[in-house]
This record gives sequence, structure tokens and C-alpha cells, in this order.
Amino acid sequence: MTDSWATFGTDLHLEPVGQGLRSGLMEALREAVRTGRLAPGTRLPSSRVLAADLGVARNTVADAYAELVAEGWLTARQGSGTRVAQRSAPRRTDPAAARSRPVRPGARYSLKPGSPDLSAFPRTAWLKAARKALTAAPDEAFGYGDPHGRVELRTALAEYLARSRGVHADPDRIVICSGFAHGLTLLGRVLRRRGIRDVAVESYGLDVHRDLLTDAGLRTPCLPLDEHGSRTGEPAALRGAGAVLLTPAHQFPTGVPLHPDRRAAAVDWARSTGGLILEDDYDGEFRYDRQPVGALQGLDPERVVYLGTASKSLAPGLRSGWMVVPESLVAEVAGAKGPANSCGVVDQLTLAEFIGSGAYDRHVRRMRLCYRRRRDELVAALAERAPRIGVTGLSAGLHVVLRLPPGLDERTVVQAAHWQGLAVQGVGAYRHPDAKAETWGGLVVGYGTPSDSAWAGTLEALLQALSAVGDIEGPRPV
Amino acid sequence: MTDSWATFGTDLHLEPVGQGLRSGLMEALREAVRTGRLAPGTRLPSSRVLAADLGVARNTVADAYAELVAEGWLTARQGSGTRVAQRSAPRRTDPAAARSRPVRPGARYSLKPGSPDLSAFPRTAWLKAARKALTAAPDEAFGYGDPHGRVELRTALAEYLARSRGVHADPDRIVICSGFAHGLTLLGRVLRRRGIRDVAVESYGLDVHRDLLTDAGLRTPCLPLDEHGSRTGEPAALRGAGAVLLTPAHQFPTGVPLHPDRRAAAVDWARSTGGLILEDDYDGEFRYDRQPVGALQGLDPERVVYLGTASKSLAPGLRSGWMVVPESLVAEVAGAKGPANSCGVVDQLTLAEFIGSGAYDRHVRRMRLCYRRRRDELVAALAERAPRIGVTGLSAGLHVVLRLPPGLDERTVVQAAHWQGLAVQGVGAYRHPDAKAETWGGLVVGYGTPSDSAWAGTLEALLQALSAVGDIEGPRPV
Repeated sequence: MTDSWATFGTDLHLEPVGQGLRSGLMEALREAVRTGRLAPGTRLPSSRVLAADLGVARNTVADAYAELVAEGWLTARQGSGTRVAQRSAPRRTDPAAARSRPVRPGARYSLKPGSPDLSAFPRTAWLKAARKALTAAPDEAFGYGDPHGRVELRTALAEYLARSRGVHADPDRIVICSGFAHGLTLLGRVLRRRGIRDVAVESYGLDVHRDLLTDAGLRTPCLPLDEHGSRTGEPAALRGAGAVLLTPAHQFPTGVPLHPDRRAAAVDWARSTGGLILEDDYDGEFRYDRQPVGALQGLDPERVVYLGTASKSLAPGLRSGWMVVPESLVAEVAGAKGPANSCGVVDQLTLAEFIGSGAYDRHVRRMRLCYRRRRDELVAALAERAPRIGVTGLSAGLHVVLRLPPGLDERTVVQAAHWQGLAVQGVGAYRHPDAKAETWGGLVVGYGTPSDSAWAGTLEALLQALSAVGDIEGPRPV
Repeated sequence: MTDSWATFGTDLHLEPVGQGLRSGLMEALREAVRTGRLAPGTRLPSSRVLAADLGVARNTVADAYAELVAEGWLTARQGSGTRVAQRSAPRRTDPAAARSRPVRPGARYSLKPGSPDLSAFPRTAWLKAARKALTAAPDEAFGYGDPHGRVELRTALAEYLARSRGVHADPDRIVICSGFAHGLTLLGRVLRRRGIRDVAVESYGLDVHRDLLTDAGLRTPCLPLDEHGSRTGEPAALRGAGAVLLTPAHQFPTGVPLHPDRRAAAVDWARSTGGLILEDDYDGEFRYDRQPVGALQGLDPERVVYLGTASKSLAPGLRSGWMVVPESLVAEVAGAKGPANSCGVVDQLTLAEFIGSGAYDRHVRRMRLCYRRRRDELVAALAERAPRIGVTGLSAGLHVVLRLPPGLDERTVVQAAHWQGLAVQGVGAYRHPDAKAETWGGLVVGYGTPSDSAWAGTLEALLQALSAVGDIEGPRPV
């Protein structure tokens, strides 16, 4: 039998040099057992024989055998030598099959909303902030941490949100989360535990947000919407709801800001019923034609939970979000995060430094100019080449809604765009299942999504798609 | 009335300079409404009057008023001027009260297990890796991302885990998470959805881990434990369980490695019942007297979920963890993470670079030497000054268990340590509520926790505490 082991040694593809020999031998033996090359019960050569065969020290082989015995791969019994452990051979997995997970073929261009220009992430400035933050951080910062999040970040955010968004913030009522979805998940859990069953949502919005609430055991009745935003003032609209999810600065996706009377009505509803407003301030930083409309939260910090993120202002990949929470809810919301803070401390400290140093404001200003230029180019191009298309939701954010002329189905345009290599979404994709059907069609155009270099091509693809479906080059309707 | 507005202007503490004037005026007005200084219905001075009073441009005031109307703070009606909006004054929150959240007074020294030496976090090397990673990252890396986690990190981990831990890993079966608690939460959810009711846990372990499973709707029956680790081979022990949570490399907290027969028995149980093993490899990198015992997962990658983190090897604050998941579970586990990846991409890319460049190995090697030195000092000091104390769990990890002589209650020692300013935990704190009561007491000594500079003082405090309770300086028991 000894002869065959010479071959076996070669089969192991060992390179008998350096420190890695023992571990290489172990891995080769594991692999041989795993794949069935070495069947259960097979007796291995003695360490002396295999060592000689491989030209290595006997101890190396003996140690490897001992390890594999400890791990349960091999057994060593007095008098019967070292054998492959008695158990059915592990199922073999096919790495090729595992790797063939289908990848969705990407469209060449995308105007899907919800993402900023990823190519504009300020890598150098971020690294600079990371260096300062990591140098200054106390050792304890690297521990499990407080579920509220790092105090440095909560302090920087309190100052920033008060200044830029009129949020009544103080560090003790801020809870850091890993984005809006995480924040909403935590809030859903807290609301459900408080016995709430219904969280009203706008009749247009993201289904993933509704799903997160549903997953928490909540129902999501739908709040009607018109050109002044969600109709918070109607007595029937919020009846029975324990909370309402709103996008006051720039309704998603229709783009209308919530009318002052509707803001007041929402707060009045919350006060009179003990309800809670969840304010999704998803693109509050980006307003072009006038200064940003301040956050609703400022009107009543005890009845509004403010949710913001760095996903539009910096990048979704940071998974950095924050909630400004009524004092009476802070402990519950932080508690819902679980035993440890779930957000990486390096990013938290870096973002605190990034905000505190003014780099965040500079980046937002730069991006605001960039996005406004794109918006202006989009509007000008449409006016020239597709004047029958109306545009709404212009004054803020990273997307607009193109209103299609009556008779032109948005699905037709989405399909035409697809043939131009352009991914774009119709407003219908965001409609609440219980919403009153609209008589008009529209496209949600996320002009923040392309990189600067792809922008011109993307815009052209959109115009081509629109002209392909025809009937848009007439005079603009009054 | 105009007169009083001069005072009002002063009260606003405005500094009428620079770009911030309008927003400063707005915030001052908001604050005045919020605190009730401006009651609902109060008519404000005209923009002309207030502008003259403050010595600023009239447009500045007019713009601020218009913003606050849009935000719902003020109302503007033709003929009745600008007034504070009609609604009950917001409740005032007392920032002093919010800030007085009690802070637990920290002990001067800590030997609580579960944390590495935070002062040893390799800040410079981490920054270097971050720079390389951020420079090399494609733009799409900054998007919402794949719930599986970045492919760069999964690829680096697959290579590292195979090499260092004998894990059968390939990037497609790795799911990134934000630490062990996150991973266990996801797995608990998946198991419960699959109809599993019972996940067996070791009779000593962390209550927070049991709680995470309980929160997912699972029961956590207890698996007996002896000097060879958890008794996976007893027919009754795992009966009815759909999964079992184990710490094979170094049982937490008792420190024993799982005996090869017990490893085999666990895998056999999983195969014959279709059960799943959750392998918590919490400190697999740290083994001192011999090479690490490879992961159990390698024995049957389709029946074992391997869970690892950077919490002990680098720092808990990174919130970086990973699961190597049976192929048949990958989609469910990734799906349980929700719509977006919840782990920051910068840390993921940085860790990938850190591992790929060899910096991770270097750091682990350096820390291994440091922790081994501490362990040796601890053992030597105990042998000299408290020879009746037995020490177990020595060969690996960042903690040992001190076995106290019969008759010495561990709570007495914990209390004595407390008086020395030392936080330390008795083994009883980790006992499963259903576990058979032990006849011996023990202390779990996490010698990885102190910084290097605090180590000598911490060790001395432990020895003082032990000598304070007396009766430990006799001859070592046989």
C-alpha cells in the first residue's frame, strides 16, 4: 500500500516549503475527504512514511494528523493507525453552480430615482475626515458602543439639522441607524409593541417601505394625495391610524411639497389623537429655486420622528441614517436596535468630522449646483423636443415627474425607454394598491442617478424614447 | 406695538451679518414660537419694520417670513399680515432633563470577557487600507448594494477562512453582517420561517444570544456540557431541536474545545435529522499552545452555518461579521437582511483590502503574542500568589476560567473585586436557566480587555481581590 502514497502525496499538490506546509497539507487532506477522494475508513500512511514521501519533517505530518483528528476529519486509535473518520462522505457542492447566480443585465442608462450620482462620492475629502476622526478617537470608541450611536456624530447632526433643516434636535434624542429602511424597521417594531395597528402611508410611495411596516405586523392604509400633498386635513383620512408616514419636503414620487395647512393639520391630528408623524426627509438638502422648506419636526418635536440619511447627500453605500425621536420614545427606539450598536464606528466618527469640518455643506452645495444644472437641461430639452410633456416636482430633490399626454400609457414609454437601453419607472409603480387610480400617466425621472459623463447620453435616450412613442411634439397644452 | 419689536429684534440674538442672517432669523423665530415667547395668533411686525429695526435688507425678513409660512409656523393672510400659526403652543422639552440620562459609573479596571484590547486597534494600517480600497473602488460600490455584501470582501474572506480556519468557503455562500448578534438574528428569523421551534444552546453561554433567538420566536433548550465540551452525542440532548448553537473552538465561557467525537456526533445528528449547526467561531484566531482547531463547518458545509466576526480580532466597533451559509440557505439569509445591505461599504472594502494585503494576519499574529504574554503572566502570578485557584480554558481565546476552591462563593469574589475597582464576572452569570447547578464556582477572566498600560494594574487588582477573600494561598490541590 505504501507505494500508492507516493502518488497520493503528489495528488495533494503540496509545495513543501515555508511555514504554510502543515496547513497546506491539512487543507489538502480536508479537501480529499470532502470530495470523496479519501473515503471514510481509509487508512492513511504513517506520518513517517508520508513525511519521507513528501520530503518534509515527520513532525509536520504528525502535527497535521493530530489537528485533523482534533477537528474530527480523521481518527487515531491505538493499533489501527490514522484513518478517515467514519461518516458518510460530505455532499459535494458544485462551485460552478454556486457561482452561476443570475446577474440581472443592467440597462446602459438609468433614470431610476433614489440614488445620487455615485461617481461624485467625495473620496478624498472622506478619507481626510477619516484620518482626522481616527486619530482623534478615544480607544473606547472601538468597543461595542451605545445603541444610540456615537456622541460625536449625534452632536454634529444636532447642530447641522437645526441649522439646515429647522429640526429641534439635541444629541440625546438622536438615534443613529443604517439608513431609512433600518430606521423604519425599528420604528415599526416600537409602534407595534405599543399596540398600534395602522400606520397611514401616502397613496404614492415606495412599496419596500410599506413592506417593512407590514413585516412589523402593521397595516398601511392609504392617505389620499393631491397637488398640495397628502390630505392630512380630512377627518376620515387618518381615522384609526396610530402614526402616519409622510414626505413633507418633496413628496415621493410626485414631488409636491406638503402645503402649510396640511402640515398644520398633520400636527393637529397628532396632538389631538396622540398619534405620531414619521417624517421621511429623504432629499431635504436639495432645493433649487428657493431655500429648503424646514422640517415638519420643528413644529412639534414630541409628535414627529424625523428620519434623514446620507444616502442622497453622500452615498447609499455608507448606510448612514439618523432619527430625531420624541424624548418619550428614545429609549424604546434605541432598545429596538438590539444589544449593540449596529452601525460601524469608523463611518460614524468620519461622518461627524465630515459634517463638523464643513465638508458636508460644501459637498451638498456642489451637488446642488450639479443637479440643478441637470434639471435645467432636462426641462429645456423637453420644452424644445417634447413640449406636450408636462414636468412637475421641479423645485427640489433628485427627480421630477413627467406627465404624459392623455392617451399615452406610461408602460408604453417605459418599454420604449427599455429599447433605448434606458431604465426608467412609471409613477404607477409607486401607487398604493388601495389608491384611487389616476387618469394620467407619468414617468419618474431620477436625474440624480447618472454620472456626469453619462448624463448627456442618458438625457438623449430619454428624448429618443419619448419621440419613439410619438405624439409629443405638438404645442404644449395650456 | 412697533416699539416692542425693537426689543423683540434684540431678543432674537441676531447677528445681522453674513449669509446666515436669514436662517438665523428663522431659527430665532421658530424658537420663540416653540418656547411660547410668541403665542399663537400673535401678529408679527411687517417685514419693512423688522428689517429697519434689525438693520438688514427687507427681502431677508420677507424671505424668512415666507419660509416659515411654508413650514407652517406662521400664516400670512391678505389684510391681516403675518401671524404666528393658530395652534396650541408646542410642549416645551427640558434639554437639561434629556441630558441627565444616567451614566453607569465605570469600574477602574475590567476583566469582563468579550472585548479585545481596544487600544490596539491598528488605526494607521486601517487608514492605509481604507485609502487603497477607496481609490480602487468602482463607483457602483457606493450604491445601495447587494444584501450578500461586497464581492471584494466575500472573496478575501473565502480565501482567508479556508486557509486559517479550514472553512469550506466560497464567495457565493458568504453573507456579510454587522456582527454575531446581527447574524444570529437573521438566522433565527430564517429558522423560524422554516417552521423550526427549538434551537438548542450550550448550558453556558451569553444570555443576549439566547434572547435574540427567543425574540425570533424560538425556544432555547439547553445542551449539557462537560470537560469535553457540549454533549452532542447523547440521544436525548438534541431531540426535537431544529438547530444547535455551538462554540466548538473554545467553548464560551468554560474554554474547552469540543472533543473530536462530539464534533462528529454533532454533524451526524445534523445529517440524520436535517438539523443545522450554528458555529460561533468567536475567537478561533487566538490559539497559543498549538495551531488553531479548524472550524467544524469544514466537516459538512451543507449542515453548518459558520459565523465569524472582526470583533475580537480587530474591534467590535467595526460591526463587521460574516456567515458562511449552506448553499440551500444563502438566498433566505440574504433576503432576511432586508431590501438593502445594512453594512457600510467603506468598511467592507477596507476590510477586504486589510485581509488581502496581509495586514489582518500581521495584526492577529501581533495580538496573539500580546495576549499569550498576558495569559502567561496571569498564570504565573496565580501560581505564586493564589495557588489554590485552578485555571481552565488556557490554550486559546481571550479569557480563562478561574476555578475557585470549594466553599468560596464566586459572588463573594466578584464583590471583593468590585471593591478593588475591578469589574469581573462569575461563571454563574452565563449559566442557562435550565442548566444543572454546578458545585463549583468560577470567575471568567477576560484578559484581552485591558489596554497594555492598564494590564499590570488590572492583574494586581484581581490578585488583591482574591487575597481579600482569603483561603487561597494554601498548597495547590491535586
